[in-house]
Amino acid sequence: MAALSSQHPFDADTAVEPLGDGTFAATISGRWNRLAGGPNGGYLVAVCLKALSEVVPHGDPMVLSAFFLRPGQEGAAQVQTELARAGRRTSTAEARLVQDGKERVRVVATFGRLAHMSGRTAVFNDPPSLPAPEQSIDPLAGAPIAGVTLADRVEFRVAEPPGWLHGEPTGRPEGNTWARLKGDRDADLFALPLLVDAAAPAVLELGVGRSVTLELTVHLRDHPSPGWLACRIVTRHVFNGLYDEDFEIWDSRRRLVAQSRQLGMLLEPS
Amino acid sequence: MAALSSQHPFDADTAVEPLGDGTFAATISGRWNRLAGGPNGGYLVAVCLKALSEVVPHGDPMVLSAFFLRPGQEGAAQVQTELARAGRRTSTAEARLVQDGKERVRVVATFGRLAHMSGRTAVFNDPPSLPAPEQSIDPLAGAPIAGVTLADRVEFRVAEPPGWLHGEPTGRPEGNTWARLKGDRDADLFALPLLVDAAAPAVLELGVGRSVTLELTVHLRDHPSPGWLACRIVTRHVFNGLYDEDFEIWDSRRRLVAQSRQLGMLLEPS
Repeated sequence: MAALSSQHPFDADTAVEPLGDGTFAATISGRWNRLAGGPNGGYLVAVCLKALSEVVPHGDPMVLSAFFLRPGQEGAAQVQTELARAGRRTSTAEARLVQDGKERVRVVATFGRLAHMSGRTAVFNDPPSLPAPEQSIDPLAGAPIAGVTLADRVEFRVAEPPGWLHGEPTGRPEGNTWARLKGDRDADLFALPLLVDAAAPAVLELGVGRSVTLELTVHLRDHPSPGWLACRIVTRHVFNGLYDEDFEIWDSRRRLVAQSRQLGMLLEPS
Repeated sequence: MAALSSQHPFDADTAVEPLGDGTFAATISGRWNRLAGGPNGGYLVAVCLKALSEVVPHGDPMVLSAFFLRPGQEGAAQVQTELARAGRRTSTAEARLVQDGKERVRVVATFGRLAHMSGRTAVFNDPPSLPAPEQSIDPLAGAPIAGVTLADRVEFRVAEPPGWLHGEPTGRPEGNTWARLKGDRDADLFALPLLVDAAAPAVLELGVGRSVTLELTVHLRDHPSPGWLACRIVTRHVFNGLYDEDFEIWDSRRRLVAQSRQLGMLLEPS
């Protein structure tokens, strides 16, 4: 589990070591801290997925649901896994990420082999419209946010800087962005759940304060092609401080590779 | 647990009886069978939610994720529950519906008190456009489908009959419909997860055959007002036989009360 110097931070920081009985040791790193403080939820999910991949016979996560019970923290963690069903085409298992004896995140996921799936293809949606990455701007250039180490790990490119970042929320909780891992490592199926949760919440464009995620569902539809990924983020329904957020990730083949929805809760009434 | 003659079928067929240790007895009824045969997945989820409501301190399901491991069947079932966390504002618990020693459905859900939620409200979406229920038609009138007992429990009204039902799939996997429980019982938070899964899959408009649901996530956003509910169903991404399906339910106050997404798999390649 020791981080080899040659390992990319994503691989080093999601590594798990079997302790027997389906339990794995992990070390939650401080290199993926989010805007609200503490480790990003998608990063915790990626750690859980790595442990789950050790106990299921299929290699590709296809769908997962994560419930965030308590905030995670930097330091030692155990991931307790349980295989719910191993079938011919898919298998389902559950992971509980525990720190200091308290469960932080519960993930249930179904794995399969995406390359073995066959059948109809028909898409009624388009990738988000964005200028080429080299003609887009880094939204955080010149405006680093202290403590958000996640911004050192994930890179974004946008057409226009987000309004909330400059004290002028647009009132429209939506946006498009390019995203990729920093450091010459392309995203794979295990990194996509991190990326769907790595951007700033769209509700910041409503001028709200902090929020927490109650639940996050991610569909992983295909192995992403290398390079920049085009992302669409939108919140459609904010009601009494609860909101949904949908996130899509499209790769350079113009293929939807991940789609997520989360239910979040604003912490300050406004 | 015995069905009182005065009880509505939904209440009778989702009743659970505590057996101790967080386990509940239930009887899966044959009155909610789906198009593909066997009990509707949303019905099985509703049974799990009823058991969960007995072990959490909060009364309102707010978000749930259900993984369908094996088909359910008519007859005796046990629902094993486990409280994951009971907090001040929300609590999370898990249910496993077991029949003949095999787990059929696993549900994780977070409960709260919707009436106690407060904070920002902002909606960037509209209810589906539909003629008034009394000017709409019953899509199944004159075309009953043998064995689909769910159609005796849930009523639909649409502007136009769906193409697939008459052998002419439209090629557009989407539609709007009114829905309600039959028999003078308004839907509540426990019935909404059944309703989001009660309509025929939108992918039938692609001329495909049978399909199964791998996972279903439901957000429950408010207690629905009485009467007909306006529903929007859409599939946007079908890829190698896997597809998403989004379902929205709006009540007569034009409020989104439930929103779901499922990942389904076509069983016959086409």
